[in-house]
Parts: sequence; C-alpha cells; structure tokens
Amino acid sequence: MGEPFLLTPGPLTTAFSVKQAMLRDWGSWDADFRAMTRSLCDQLVALAGDTAGEFVCVPMQGSGSFSVEAMLGTMVPKGGKALVLANGAYGLRAAETLRVMGRAYTLIDKGDYLPPRGDEVGRALDDDPAITHVIAIHCETSSGILNPVAEIAEAVAARGRSLLIDSMSAFGAVELDVNQIRYDAMVSSANKCIEGVPGFGFVIARRSALEPAKGNAHSLSLDVHAQWQGLVKSGQWRFTPPTHVVAAFLEALRLHAEEGGVPARGARYTQNRDVMVAGMRELGFETLLADRWLSPIIVTFFNPAHPNFDFSRFYELMKAKGFIIYPGKLTVVDSFRVGCIGRMDAEIMRRVVRAAGESLTEMGVDNAAPPAAAIAERAKLAA
Amino acid sequence: MGEPFLLTPGPLTTAFSVKQAMLRDWGSWDADFRAMTRSLCDQLVALAGDTAGEFVCVPMQGSGSFSVEAMLGTMVPKGGKALVLANGAYGLRAAETLRVMGRAYTLIDKGDYLPPRGDEVGRALDDDPAITHVIAIHCETSSGILNPVAEIAEAVAARGRSLLIDSMSAFGAVELDVNQIRYDAMVSSANKCIEGVPGFGFVIARRSALEPAKGNAHSLSLDVHAQWQGLVKSGQWRFTPPTHVVAAFLEALRLHAEEGGVPARGARYTQNRDVMVAGMRELGFETLLADRWLSPIIVTFFNPAHPNFDFSRFYELMKAKGFIIYPGKLTVVDSFRVGCIGRMDAEIMRRVVRAAGESLTEMGVDNAAPPAAAIAERAKLAA
Ligand SMILES: Cc1ncc(COP(=O)(O)O)c(C=O)c1O
Ligand SMILES: Cc1ncc(COP(=O)(O)O)c(C=O)c1O
Repeated sequence: MGEPFLLTPGPLTTAFSVKQAMLRDWGSWDADFRAMTRSLCDQLVALAGDTAGEFVCVPMQGSGSFSVEAMLGTMVPKGGKALVLANGAYGLRAAETLRVMGRAYTLIDKGDYLPPRGDEVGRALDDDPAITHVIAIHCETSSGILNPVAEIAEAVAARGRSLLIDSMSAFGAVELDVNQIRYDAMVSSANKCIEGVPGFGFVIARRSALEPAKGNAHSLSLDVHAQWQGLVKSGQWRFTPPTHVVAAFLEALRLHAEEGGVPARGARYTQNRDVMVAGMRELGFETLLADRWLSPIIVTFFNPAHPNFDFSRFYELMKAKGFIIYPGKLTVVDSFRVGCIGRMDAEIMRRVVRAAGESLTEMGVDNAAPPAAAIAERAKLAA
Repeated sequence: MGEPFLLTPGPLTTAFSVKQAMLRDWGSWDADFRAMTRSLCDQLVALAGDTAGEFVCVPMQGSGSFSVEAMLGTMVPKGGKALVLANGAYGLRAAETLRVMGRAYTLIDKGDYLPPRGDEVGRALDDDPAITHVIAIHCETSSGILNPVAEIAEAVAARGRSLLIDSMSAFGAVELDVNQIRYDAMVSSANKCIEGVPGFGFVIARRSALEPAKGNAHSLSLDVHAQWQGLVKSGQWRFTPPTHVVAAFLEALRLHAEEGGVPARGARYTQNRDVMVAGMRELGFETLLADRWLSPIIVTFFNPAHPNFDFSRFYELMKAKGFIIYPGKLTVVDSFRVGCIGRMDAEIMRRVVRAAGESLTEMGVDNAAPPAAAIAERAKLAA
C-alpha cells in the first residue's frame, strides 16, 4: 500500500483483510451483528483458557483506558481499597483513574525500570488488611517491561485478595491463562496483539466476581456489570457498538487462530524483537531493560548521547523510509521506543534496523551509545 | 454491494468511499493523524456556525452515550442541579446518567408523544432557582419527535441558566446554529447525520463555559475538559483514538460539504421522510406523531391491529427484501420505526414502501390500520 509500517504499540499495522472487513455496514440491532458479538466474546474467553464457563467477556466501547476505568469502577466497590503496582505511565494512570473516581488506593511505585515482585506485594498486603484488590500491569508499555504477573498472582491469591490485570498490550501474544494465573478480571483492547483496529476494549471477568459488582460503577457508560447484563438479556451492546471495528476484529481473530494462537503470535513477536534488538545493539543503541525483562511487545532504547542526535529528526528520517517509531515515555532519561507487534515479521525488522543505521548516518551520528549517566542510572537500579 | 439498507438511526448506510477511507492504518501520535484531528474539529465547529472562535470541539471515544455522559459530568458541577426535559428513552437516559454520577437533577417527563415547551421550562426554572443547567434532546430518536429547542433555549437564556443539548441524531441535518440558538454545549456522534461509521462522539462547547469546568468530571476517560486540554497541548487525543473511524468521518464530512452542508442534508432527509410517510399512509399505516412534530430523522409507526401482523416476521420479510427497519421504543403502544437518514434518497424510500406493502401481503395483512386504542391515546394526548 505504500503506507508506513507502524512500529508502535497500537494502533498498529494490520492485515489488509482486517481493514477490508470494514467495507460494509451492519445494523447493530440485527441478528447478524448479534451473532458477531457473540462469536467475539466466545473466542476471547477461549483465548483466556476458560473451558469451565467461569469467565465472561464484556466488550466496552472506547479506547483501552475506558475499559481499564470500567473494570476498576465496576470491580473495586466504593468501600474497597486497591493496591496499584506501578512501574510506568499505565500503572500511574490506573492510580489516577481510582483517584478521580474517589476510590481508596495505595501505590507501590517502582519507577521506570523495575518490576514489582511477588514478595513485596505479599508484604504490602500483610501490612494493610484493608486492601481488597491489587491492580497489576502485565506489559508496562511505557518501558516495555514484562511484569511477573504469575508470582504477583500467587502472592495475591495466597492472601485471599482479588487481582485485576491490565493486559492491554500483552493479551493474545503472552499467555494469561486462567488455569495458570489466578485473577478476577483482565482488560485488553482491539488494537494490540490481536491486531485489530482501535475502537473498543474488553474485560474478561470471573463470573463470581462480576456478579456481586452490580451498582458499583461510578458511570452509566463504563459499567461492566450493566454491559454484561445487557448482553445476556438481548445479545446487544447497551449503546451503539463500533460495528466496523468489531467486524475487523473478527477477521483479526481469524488470522490469530490461523497463525496458531497465542504461542505462535508470541513467537513471531519474540523473533521480531530479537532480530530488531540485536541489530540495534550492533548500531550501538542500548536497551533500557536487561534482557530478562524485555517484552516481545515494545522495546525502549536510550537516545544516543551524540550531539547530532535529535529525536524529531530521527523520527522524520525513519518515517521517510517507511517506519513510524514511537517517542519514549520515561520520566528520567531520554528514550524512544520500537514496537514489535502488528502485521510484521523478522524481514521487516531487518529493514527497520537498516533504516535506523541509515538515519544515523544522515544525521552525522557515528555512534549510538547512550550518555554515561543513563547507563549509570540503569546499573544503580538493577543492583 | 448487495447488503441491506439500514433504515435505522445509526449505524446507518454510509457511502462506499467513507468505508474505503478505512483501508489504511495511521499512527495516532504521527503529525498526519494530528492534522486529521485538527481538521475534524475545525469543520465541526464551523458546522455549528461559530465564526468568532467562541466554541471548541472535543471528540470523545466511545458511543454517543459516552459523549452525553462526558458532557454532563464535565459541564454540570458537583454542586449544580440539572433540569432534564424528557419525552422518550434518551431524555430518561440523560437523567439516569446524572443519577449514577450522583448529580442533583429534576425531571420534566412528557411521556412518549409530547414536546417540552418553552413556557413550561420557564415556569420550572422560575420555581426552582437551584437549577443551573437544562438538558434538552434535540431529536428524541425513540419517537422521532423534533423538540422545539429554539423556544427552550430562549426560556433558559432569559433566566440566565445554561443549556446543554443532546443533538445526537439531528446535528448535521437540522440547524443548531450558535448564532440563533443559545447553548453552552451540544453533543453528537460520528454515525448519525454526518453519515460516518460508529466509534466516537463529540462535544461542541462554549469556551467560556468549558474553561471553568476543570476538575468537575467524575471520570478520567469521560472528562471533556481534560480531553480538550490534551488536544490543545499536543494535538492528540489523550487516549488511543479510533483512527480508522476518524478517517471515515473526514470523508463523510467531505461528502456532507459537497452535498451542500446542513440545508442540503436536511432537505434530502426531509424528502426521504415525506416520500416514505406518504407511501406508508397509503398502505394504511399511521404515524405516532402529528405532522408538525415529525422529524426528518426517523418516523414511528403504530403496529397494525390486524391479527396476522407480527413485528418479527415483518422485520425478516423486510430484511429479505434488502431493508433493515428498527423496532419501536415506546412505553405504551406497540410500534416500529423507519429511519430517513444515511446514504439513501427518495427512490430508495419508494422501494421501502413497496417492500412494506409486499411484506403485508405475504403476512396476509390487508389493512395496516392501528388499533383504535392507539389512536385514542394519541388523540387524548394531543388535545
Ligand atoms: C498497558 C496499557 N494500559 C493502558 C493503555 C491505554 O490504552 P488506550 O491508549 O487504548 O486508552 C495502554 C495503551 O497503550 C497500555 O499499553
Ligand atoms: C438522541 C440520542 N441520544 C443519545 C443516543 C445514544 O447514542 P449511542 O447509541 O451512540 O450511545 C442516541 C442514539 O441513537 C440518540 O438518538
């Protein structure tokens, strides 16, 4: 199509057939569309590994943040208290969401680089029996860190609290199987690892945790319980669904299954990451994170220290070569990000690396090494 | 395309070029997409007639109800009180939205058939000085009634209160010019009279009324002030926008202008309605509303009294002929609705009427007259 590849964490580059699925109009009340909604929910619950009918899928209009807010507002009751595990922008946004809604919460803030670990979560829960819910970010997209949700889930379950997971940028490519990781609800959206186009998110919730959540929500629109009940009663979204985006998502789900489901999708993204990170390191770039915490979703690189490096220029040079990269979102050091998700393979990633090398040359940057201060910061925190 | 026409109040039948505009992916952070957002907002403010820079347009992810909730939660402060003018489902939904948010409100409920009038709004405001905001529904889509917003606006302005209008199903086809009707904010969405696809709504707000609304919102996502400030600062939607839906909307706006703007769009819909209503009346169907209150958006017909008439069957017969109609949403009598909006003209409407006649014949209904009770009810209320 001649359009640039989106090396971004969604919206991302989708298959042409996904976009083609939007070339017709559906009546949202009609049985054909109700069947589409039904299929979407069934497939997503299956992707989460639920075979016992213990979980339900509730799609929600809006961006992913709308679904996060809907999950928090519905699952954390007004008298509850949440522990938010933050190590980047999305964890902090979850906390801010709770603050605006007037829900009690406390925060473990690990900064930009480090994962919240099971033992510290356990200690925080032991110290504060008032905590009813723990909010974890699966892949914290602002750094690209893959948080250890399995050990967090164990710490939470051992103490009888409820775990809510923001798996926005991981679900579909990283396993989040309800039989292996105990959680009460998770949230993701159409335009991440399933490779649909943006327009809705979805909450996958344990039925027994959602049932008592009636009336909790602070909002009519962002009420997961009411949305669920509407679906159960009429097969319809309560309010107008983004019909075309739903059609695109069904085609994206078909391609996801055809590729081989979560393991195959995860393997392709992992290969994308490995090829890209290896190539970028050869150019002298350094990753923010140690290999151990690198997700297959998106990778943060330090900006080179070279005085000729300028991110806006680099962005434009990369775009002219057909690649849209992503600015950084760290608080302490300058950085940029390269996504590994979307309709792309290792060959594309090799072209990305080539384009990065050429862009450096055009800028007169002969060395992509980061400033010593960035490395020192990273070493300090990793110690 | 062989797909059915949607005689529904949105999602509706869109132009093929509108859907084709979704055949590529955009990076939401990229300058190209920021320019698209900018153009969208500028065009919508212009459609509202603002040339003095007094109004701003704030797009909001989600369905129209999300934008209504965002407008109410942002514009009605926690210490404010709203008067909701209801004559159907959408007025009642606005009231329910306020209730869930915990905002004080009072209701004038006119039932299914009758418009709230300027004089009674004036009296209600005189009686209750605590009322700060009035919520009016422009076209109440549940019956299809076009409410007299001009006289309501006068009554509200004369008493120094603030008017918020839900013009979801009217904006773009019925004038709502800020120079003729005084209001502080209105809301509509992508998939109504502009003929885009569903996925976002927008609030057009008076700058001087929006400025003091900082911190009012009950929700992080549904905060019109924060969304506005984000746009002003970065040119971006705060959270991932439905990029493809936005692209489709820009093409829809282009077609809207090409057709001749609001007057031409309104004229086409009016002709659609007139042709369709005349034909349906010839078949014996009767409209819920007197001609004076019929909107050019959607028309409610009483179900025929004939014992062979069955709405589900009628729906399927019409669908088999290529037309998706809409169920009724009245509380007292059985009814169905036929929309006049979307990419359709008088010739299509003649085919709709023909299909309705054939469907009646196939059902063995030789007379589409409504039950006497429905007519009596209507007469009583209109008296
Ligand atoms: C982990 C995580 N949470 C929440 C969000 C917010 O999603 P959205 O931008 O669709 O509102 C994102 C977006 O990238 C994300 O990666
Ligand atoms: C007048 C009015 N208000 C609100 C809405 C709700 O919009 P949505 O269904 O997109 O949430 C509609 C939908 O038709 C409407 O006609």
